Amino acid sequence: MKPEKDTQMIEIQFDKHGLVPVIAQDVETKDVLMLAYANREAVELTSSTGYAHYYSRSRQKLWKKGEESGNLQQVHSILVDCDEDTLIYLVNQTTAACHTGHRSCFYRTLDGTITSERLFDPEKVYGRE
Amino acid sequence: MKPEKDTQMIEIQFDKHGLVPVIAQDVETKDVLMLAYANREAVELTSSTGYAHYYSRSRQKLWKKGEESGNLQQVHSILVDCDEDTLIYLVNQTTAACHTGHRSCFYRTLDGTITSERLFDPEKVYGRE
Repeated sequence: MKPEKDTQMIEIQFDKHGLVPVIAQDVETKDVLMLAYANREAVELTSSTGYAHYYSRSRQKLWKKGEESGNLQQVHSILVDCDEDTLIYLVNQTTAACHTGHRSCFYRTLDGTITSERLFDPEKVYGRE
Repeated sequence: MKPEKDTQMIEIQFDKHGLVPVIAQDVETKDVLMLAYANREAVELTSSTGYAHYYSRSRQKLWKKGEESGNLQQVHSILVDCDEDTLIYLVNQTTAACHTGHRSCFYRTLDGTITSERLFDPEKVYGRE
């Protein structure tokens, strides 16, 4: 289809904590890599720098994905859902998204079956797991 | 790789409202269809019936996807992330997931460009949009 523009401006609906959930999806394989949260500043930095930024709820700070591990996410485009309260970052992922060393954080089925192998040893990258 | 079992039991980490975010992903195309929330009962019903169930935060009730529209999600498998606080339902989606008539709720980029066409007229299916 021919791309068309929505006539209404998109206004991201941040929750009462100023956050929106973000799904990081591999733009090539279409694997879902992780779910994290972003505040307005993180979305703006992602747009302006082309690298995925999030907001860590536990550390209460803005966070550039891969700033410690080097496993950056170069952002191809950002999608928004019908309610404008969830985003997808379509990314080119360096090495692996998950701190466990797996490519995706979703490496297990609910019964515990592991569906992908580790791509790096987390102890060597982070000095901890 | 050979499938292996995680030695630790998976225990879904529901938030303080008893909910966990769920990404519905098309098992064939790998398109992300929607993000919704589930409580324990919704996850259990999804597992036992093979059809996606969620919990509506606005209506405060359990919800079977497609119960009104007929656009059911047959669940192929359920994935869990490293922190055990987010799920993926891998689904076979009937017609379209989005109440707007688009296949996926993520049918726009952040600048408002529409990237997919409508598959049904929401007014005919729901009598409203």
